[in-house]
Amino acid sequence: MVNLTGQLKSEILVEALPYIRQFQGKRFVIKYGGSAMINDELKMNFVKQISLLKYVGIKPVIIHGGGIKITEMEEKLGKKAQFVKGLRVTDKETMDLVKMVLIGLINKEIVALFRSIDEDAVGISGKDGNLLYAEKIKMDDVDMGYIGEVKQVNSRLIEALEEKDFIPVIAPVAIGPDYEAYNINADLAAAGLAAGLHAEKLILLTDAPGVLKNKEDDTSIIPTINANQINELIRTGTADKGMIPKLTASVNALKQGVKKVHILDGRVENSIILEAFTDEGIGTEIVL
Amino acid sequence: MVNLTGQLKSEILVEALPYIRQFQGKRFVIKYGGSAMINDELKMNFVKQISLLKYVGIKPVIIHGGGIKITEMEEKLGKKAQFVKGLRVTDKETMDLVKMVLIGLINKEIVALFRSIDEDAVGISGKDGNLLYAEKIKMDDVDMGYIGEVKQVNSRLIEALEEKDFIPVIAPVAIGPDYEAYNINADLAAAGLAAGLHAEKLILLTDAPGVLKNKEDDTSIIPTINANQINELIRTGTADKGMIPKLTASVNALKQGVKKVHILDGRVENSIILEAFTDEGIGTEIVL
Amino acid sequence: MVNLTGQLKSEILVEALPYIRQFQGKRFVIKYGGSAMINDELKMNFVKQISLLKYVGIKPVIIHGGGIKITEMEEKLGKKAQFVKGLRVTDKETMDLVKMVLIGLINKEIVALFRSIDEDAVGISGKDGNLLYAEKIKMDDVDMGYIGEVKQVNSRLIEALEEKDFIPVIAPVAIGPDYEAYNINADLAAAGLAAGLHAEKLILLTDAPGVLKNKEDDTSIIPTINANQINELIRTGTADKGMIPKLTASVNALKQGVKKVHILDGRVENSIILEAFTDEGIGTEIVL
Amino acid sequence: MVNLTGQLKSEILVEALPYIRQFQGKRFVIKYGGSAMINDELKMNFVKQISLLKYVGIKPVIIHGGGIKITEMEEKLGKKAQFVKGLRVTDKETMDLVKMVLIGLINKEIVALFRSIDEDAVGISGKDGNLLYAEKIKMDDVDMGYIGEVKQVNSRLIEALEEKDFIPVIAPVAIGPDYEAYNINADLAAAGLAAGLHAEKLILLTDAPGVLKNKEDDTSIIPTINANQINELIRTGTADKGMIPKLTASVNALKQGVKKVHILDGRVENSIILEAFTDEGIGTEIVL
Amino acid sequence: MVNLTGQLKSEILVEALPYIRQFQGKRFVIKYGGSAMINDELKMNFVKQISLLKYVGIKPVIIHGGGIKITEMEEKLGKKAQFVKGLRVTDKETMDLVKMVLIGLINKEIVALFRSIDEDAVGISGKDGNLLYAEKIKMDDVDMGYIGEVKQVNSRLIEALEEKDFIPVIAPVAIGPDYEAYNINADLAAAGLAAGLHAEKLILLTDAPGVLKNKEDDTSIIPTINANQINELIRTGTADKGMIPKLTASVNALKQGVKKVHILDGRVENSIILEAFTDEGIGTEIVL
Amino acid sequence: MVNLTGQLKSEILVEALPYIRQFQGKRFVIKYGGSAMINDELKMNFVKQISLLKYVGIKPVIIHGGGIKITEMEEKLGKKAQFVKGLRVTDKETMDLVKMVLIGLINKEIVALFRSIDEDAVGISGKDGNLLYAEKIKMDDVDMGYIGEVKQVNSRLIEALEEKDFIPVIAPVAIGPDYEAYNINADLAAAGLAAGLHAEKLILLTDAPGVLKNKEDDTSIIPTINANQINELIRTGTADKGMIPKLTASVNALKQGVKKVHILDGRVENSIILEAFTDEGIGTEIVL
Repeated sequence: MVNLTGQLKSEILVEALPYIRQFQGKRFVIKYGGSAMINDELKMNFVKQISLLKYVGIKPVIIHGGGIKITEMEEKLGKKAQFVKGLRVTDKETMDLVKMVLIGLINKEIVALFRSIDEDAVGISGKDGNLLYAEKIKMDDVDMGYIGEVKQVNSRLIEALEEKDFIPVIAPVAIGPDYEAYNINADLAAAGLAAGLHAEKLILLTDAPGVLKNKEDDTSIIPTINANQINELIRTGTADKGMIPKLTASVNALKQGVKKVHILDGRVENSIILEAFTDEGIGTEIVL
Repeated sequence: MVNLTGQLKSEILVEALPYIRQFQGKRFVIKYGGSAMINDELKMNFVKQISLLKYVGIKPVIIHGGGIKITEMEEKLGKKAQFVKGLRVTDKETMDLVKMVLIGLINKEIVALFRSIDEDAVGISGKDGNLLYAEKIKMDDVDMGYIGEVKQVNSRLIEALEEKDFIPVIAPVAIGPDYEAYNINADLAAAGLAAGLHAEKLILLTDAPGVLKNKEDDTSIIPTINANQINELIRTGTADKGMIPKLTASVNALKQGVKKVHILDGRVENSIILEAFTDEGIGTEIVL
Repeated sequence: MVNLTGQLKSEILVEALPYIRQFQGKRFVIKYGGSAMINDELKMNFVKQISLLKYVGIKPVIIHGGGIKITEMEEKLGKKAQFVKGLRVTDKETMDLVKMVLIGLINKEIVALFRSIDEDAVGISGKDGNLLYAEKIKMDDVDMGYIGEVKQVNSRLIEALEEKDFIPVIAPVAIGPDYEAYNINADLAAAGLAAGLHAEKLILLTDAPGVLKNKEDDTSIIPTINANQINELIRTGTADKGMIPKLTASVNALKQGVKKVHILDGRVENSIILEAFTDEGIGTEIVL
Repeated sequence: MVNLTGQLKSEILVEALPYIRQFQGKRFVIKYGGSAMINDELKMNFVKQISLLKYVGIKPVIIHGGGIKITEMEEKLGKKAQFVKGLRVTDKETMDLVKMVLIGLINKEIVALFRSIDEDAVGISGKDGNLLYAEKIKMDDVDMGYIGEVKQVNSRLIEALEEKDFIPVIAPVAIGPDYEAYNINADLAAAGLAAGLHAEKLILLTDAPGVLKNKEDDTSIIPTINANQINELIRTGTADKGMIPKLTASVNALKQGVKKVHILDGRVENSIILEAFTDEGIGTEIVL
Repeated sequence: MVNLTGQLKSEILVEALPYIRQFQGKRFVIKYGGSAMINDELKMNFVKQISLLKYVGIKPVIIHGGGIKITEMEEKLGKKAQFVKGLRVTDKETMDLVKMVLIGLINKEIVALFRSIDEDAVGISGKDGNLLYAEKIKMDDVDMGYIGEVKQVNSRLIEALEEKDFIPVIAPVAIGPDYEAYNINADLAAAGLAAGLHAEKLILLTDAPGVLKNKEDDTSIIPTINANQINELIRTGTADKGMIPKLTASVNALKQGVKKVHILDGRVENSIILEAFTDEGIGTEIVL
Repeated sequence: MVNLTGQLKSEILVEALPYIRQFQGKRFVIKYGGSAMINDELKMNFVKQISLLKYVGIKPVIIHGGGIKITEMEEKLGKKAQFVKGLRVTDKETMDLVKMVLIGLINKEIVALFRSIDEDAVGISGKDGNLLYAEKIKMDDVDMGYIGEVKQVNSRLIEALEEKDFIPVIAPVAIGPDYEAYNINADLAAAGLAAGLHAEKLILLTDAPGVLKNKEDDTSIIPTINANQINELIRTGTADKGMIPKLTASVNALKQGVKKVHILDGRVENSIILEAFTDEGIGTEIVL
């Protein structure tokens, strides 16, 4: 008789058919960061998931963070990272550090990871091909330096890469009106990119199981949340500080036409595939 | 925590990646028949498997049999089916029956089945677009009538259909030098077609678990068998009579460049997907 | 001196120029049936005419009937054909007979006929590629069974075949909402198809010289007739019973944008070419 | 009953099918001159024939002569035309006359004639698009002036015109190594062009019924003649002086790969169509 | 050290960059005539300028005059040229002369000139490819004969030539409603063509330094002039008689969408390049 | 009269025509570094030159160095740069520095510079799209660390970018067999890239006037040098140490099919344009 596991495996593959059909030809913007970018097994698992997306006809676009490494490097150089409302104060010297770490190190490591499974990725920043145009974020009391927000997305380079089957891997550094580089919060960059690229899905990988009702209780995941409920969460202080920019960025992306946003646990293997191709719930789905 | 079943499912999907990559853009010729064409659940499962193949970038070409229904119809009309060496003696009237049953009934039922899962198939015979050209099989003592063997395959129509994402479903009736229809044994037609279309795989669905060492013991499956071993099986009478044409056709297809031939149990759900996308063994793989 | 006949021939060819120019790139839907489908010389002549249309740049689409053979087959099986308002009452068993005869026998014979003059045709039914979607015709007193009328035409398959120079030959069997096959009156199917394919011309081959003023007098052909005159003919009972569905179908096709409808005598050689490429009158032209 | 003439016409059209199939997509180079370029009815008939060739998928390329008009113009200007071995001695002033008459007058008249039947032709010379490169013909005793022979054909312009459905009409003036214009005998130019364009047929329209056995007897047409027989005709003086360059040019074209050469009577209506699309004989066919 | 001249040269090339960018992919219609068509150095310089335009991605379309040569030829033939309001009275015989000189001689000389620098031009008239359709100009008192004005431009032939990198060179002879040739004033033809081809620039080469304030003073060039100022110039008789048709044609072209019109001194080398690619002023620019 | 400077400018532009023609559609690999990457005016001048190359139809590919900045950064971090035979000993930590400085800083600054003149460049490394595959350079006595030499060039990404008019800007970091980054000497990377991309020209910008006969005398430029002469220069110690890798890399590139190599003075404005588009001599041309 046929091996049961084999039977089960093939059954699961066939069950994925309606999802594959639904998403074929669509674009997914995926924010990559946290443990999924540190743990060796999770890293390997991430590139395999992305490769699978590509092989079943979906167009994945990766945008990554890297805040922890930047802070480490600052410390090494005797500087102290400074944050206002979760955004890094970025003077000229810090901006150079950001570029060096995000573009010079992290971005290329991701590309090499793809290469190790025989997949051709191309690492770019928002400056390349005029992909992300940003303007400085202005705050009342403090000069945030080279911190910007995405004002325009130019999809030409992404399309050129997709057309030839390259996976775009993007460092969240944009170009400003003065042709200077601007540091963009990776979640916000992902949301802006998803909107500008008319993505079907925006997926934010985090080091949390999803949006929680109770910060102390990892099992209190909210499976679906809408814009009003998000406002309430923020108002009541229930939302984790790190979660707030993700939530507001998500709502913005949805308002600009992205079909769905998901906050997934990047510490869990295969979470993207699970979300996209099975009817099991994982993480939090955000709706308008 | 994440649902374990979901985890498992996504893991299995990711594990399929190397197989999907390997077969993308390649053609599979699949001989469809037996229980998989009768049992309602197996029928549904068959079209879903084929649709999945198409959605992950493989080009499936279906060729079906239908002998049982022809025999039934013959009996209805008061005729008695007559076989020589496993081939149906096919006089003019029987040939009409063959065409009516294979092309008029069975072929279109398969097409409708695909439609029911929103998949566009196109049912054709070997006469259409000059797809299969056959010549009469000559035997010493008996006039077999309109029984032919494939002499030429013209891939133009198959390519036209594939290009526009239609799944070709073929009834094994060929056109002869006299522009008459010729009845072709479905296994032989599948092998000829696989060779002529430069298929990556030829898959023969049967109502047996594979090639058996011992006809009486369904667990005595031979996982891999080569041409010499096949000759030995035939010589010693170990091979089932119905299996012999499948085996010789398989060897012929391999000799003409088909990469692999598989004899799979059509009574088992998802057997094609299991064979193609997992490392579990199923049925018998035939090699040169 | 040059042979006179040769002179005459070439003169006639040159005279066809304006017609060829006018129709190049346009689609003709031709309903094939009656004597033209039985008599050997007329059959040969038919495929040559169609091939000529194709070679001068017109796109012919053939749809055929086959009622007589179905009735014959019913009798053979001891069933009695039953008609209501000219439509065959089609229970499940009869529907199988219809498919077997139309798709299994007649359709493939036409394809073989084209092959015999080295022309590649492809025989399909309305079920293939989701070409013809129909819904059941409901009558007040009687359950007509699987008799349908065309509700939607999907031109994708026809275009795929034309693009690669295959001539489509269609059996008038459609697919219904339940994925069952529906029998469509061939004249109505031709009209629906012509409308759905935005045909330039709909040509109905019949076994009559055209629409007659006087059923008893074959010379009383009406060269041109409009919708009002058709209503009058039907009202006064002047129209032949077999002619009525052709006439109403024609008017419907014209209302949906088909440029011209012609009822031609299929018993006369070259009638299609004569109508299309000369200024001689033949049969009846129907206008709004 | 159907009008007999209509019947006959359509029969003739259908009979042309095998010829249309045979020549579709092939190129015909046609040398236009003599009465067919003077008589109003023949002119009209010529452009219709060419248009018909185009509409049935053949690529006609026209090259014309014009010697008579040049001689007339020379006389008007008080010059006396001088010929050596059938070639016009062409000093600088004569060359200007040749260009003015061939390109300025005759070429554009042909283009306008096509326009009058709604056909877009483009009149060019061998200088345009570097179509015909020639070198001076050298004779022992006499300086022939700007008389050249074709050394190279550049098909790029012809292909550009054909691709957009323009009919090329060429004046036999080539460009030399000194960028000067060279007068080319139209028959020789046609043969060179046919060879350089890999034409299927070269057709030379003349004011004779074909090659004659007896110059005095217009009925003594030789239906087929080969290279050896041509040499014999020339040796024995049987060949008309005007016919000799046509014959040698024809043999050259055949040797360079043109499939067939025909010498047709341009005074007879429809002679090109008659030759190409009927099995009637006309004029002389030249073979290797 | 680097050669100073080389330095300067490369600096000038780099300075041309913004102009090249601005005009890449755009069409320039250039009226060629006067000294630039007579003087050997200017001729050579003209084709080099045009070739440069093509090589930096601009689409040049040349239309030429030739009045002087026509008058010379008329005199040679004992005819006297007659002008009304600057337009040549053109009877049938004169029209033949116009065609012979413009199309047969001048047009082909320009093509040969391009060939001498290895550039493939194609010489056509407005009759070819139905490029220029004209109607007769009617005057109250005098029958002007075959003098027409452009009523329609058909860009298909120009686009076919541009697509294959041929430079179109056009003789200003159009085709009329009677399929006769019509003589078009070259400036008016250029303006009509520029409008019909949606040109970016219309450049009129003249034998004057531009539009002058004072006819007697060659240094009194008006750098920019608008429609109102042109009317004033004409009203006060300040404008040179030869300049008036250029000016009114220019205004018409601008009104029909041509971006800019320039009247340049054809007696000055490189004037087109200077106008297009430097910020130096030359000639007169006409604006609405 | 026309302004003399304008005249001169346009003359120089026209003189560039033969060079533009010669190089249109060809690829130039340009190694960018030294003063041209530091001085603000030279930087601006560099991107303009490259943009001009692109606009006249040449395909520029930029590869840059950055050694000085790396050394600076090493010092900042308290490390001491160590060189063997002109190659930097590159341990893991240094390799990270190399990536940070070359890819994170310098590469993106060049891209921003292009953006400031409205030109879309894309900054990549040899790791992206599997562009440059390298293997470790092994020396007898010393472990050079992550210093590699190019073994394979994969042009797919460069072609994808060129096709959409993006200018590729490449940091000389390759991917090794262990998927690690390898530091490649920029001159050697440029030579390898030029060979692998079948470049027409390899241009090495340096801070020297060319190859010198006498290191002390900047006017002793050798205009053309061949492989044998290079060997002699190296043997006799005449060649500058920094020049040696450039020279040997150049000869290698030539041997692998690059048409020409030029060593140009990057301190001189417009030197690339001067070399490519004028007949003035600059720097040293290397031939086999």
